[in-house]
Amino acid sequence: MMSAGMGRWEANPRGRLMQAAMELYTERGYEQTTVAEIAQRAGLTERTFFRHFADKREVLFSGAALLQEAIVNAVAEAPESAPPIEAVAAGIEAAGDYINDREHSRRRHAIIAANPTLQERELIKNAALAAAIASALRKRGVTEPAANLTAEAGVAVFRVAFERWLKETGEKDLRAVIRESMEELRGAVAR
Amino acid sequence: MMSAGMGRWEANPRGRLMQAAMELYTERGYEQTTVAEIAQRAGLTERTFFRHFADKREVLFSGAALLQEAIVNAVAEAPESAPPIEAVAAGIEAAGDYINDREHSRRRHAIIAANPTLQERELIKNAALAAAIASALRKRGVTEPAANLTAEAGVAVFRVAFERWLKETGEKDLRAVIRESMEELRGAVAR
Repeated sequence: MMSAGMGRWEANPRGRLMQAAMELYTERGYEQTTVAEIAQRAGLTERTFFRHFADKREVLFSGAALLQEAIVNAVAEAPESAPPIEAVAAGIEAAGDYINDREHSRRRHAIIAANPTLQERELIKNAALAAAIASALRKRGVTEPAANLTAEAGVAVFRVAFERWLKETGEKDLRAVIRESMEELRGAVAR
Repeated sequence: MMSAGMGRWEANPRGRLMQAAMELYTERGYEQTTVAEIAQRAGLTERTFFRHFADKREVLFSGAALLQEAIVNAVAEAPESAPPIEAVAAGIEAAGDYINDREHSRRRHAIIAANPTLQERELIKNAALAAAIASALRKRGVTEPAANLTAEAGVAVFRVAFERWLKETGEKDLRAVIRESMEELRGAVAR
């Protein structure tokens, strides 16, 4: 039970660590930041940091695992009658519901863009996401190469939509931008 | 001028170094192989190695730059009337003409698959290729997000087609597999 006066912030060591890490990565660079400094800024111990994250890179990528799970589940749960591309569209649109803090996403994106090792990690996560979506499609009975092609196209749409959403200033949410981008792809690829 | 009796092999230090490197990477692993060993197996000096390649990784990736150039040129040279997806198709089909030694490609693929650092490198090359194709499309007057989406879809088709071609045992050339895969994508994404 939380003691009286204990706010949401104090009760959320993981969130505090993430916030402190993002600040430090932005201020002094990812490479230059140590776990000790992150813990100190969050007012916590290194021990607590390692209870929540394997290392300082994990702070930036722990969300990606949840995102992949959400996408794969939505692909799996699409109506049986949905063609592969529509199952994939449902999957990546579901991702839109998990990403709504545009300021946080912009900061994360800037941190990754400034560091080649983090960029590589991001590419690997995207490749793993495409493989997981292809696997979910095969479980729906989609054969190769359609499963791989549709999954790769879906990840491409997700990435392009995500970058558009980061750049936009309007109120459009990520789900809407993903839906539009998928329509754009289908229009561009149509005969 | 080549002296009498000097074969194509002896006149081709770059090819010998590449051959020696591929053998060693396959036999004992990429990490375990040194430049000194590659030069020795090729019957050449380390000095000669470094005249041809920046490092041992470059042996595996120097072809990718040429490939990217060939693709980008073919995109640029597609008929003005060609829609973006057809310019991209022309680009990646042109790549098929640069890759025809399936045994070499299979060995290279196996070497890369066995090493996470090389896999990352491959992903980075693919991301750079997509960016270069998108840029070529923008020069053709294609606007965003169509340029990025079509470029990413093209690279996805190329990758899936390439892996299919490696697995196949028939006589079909890579260009034909790329064309088929593009048709598959267009069918899968069509409404």
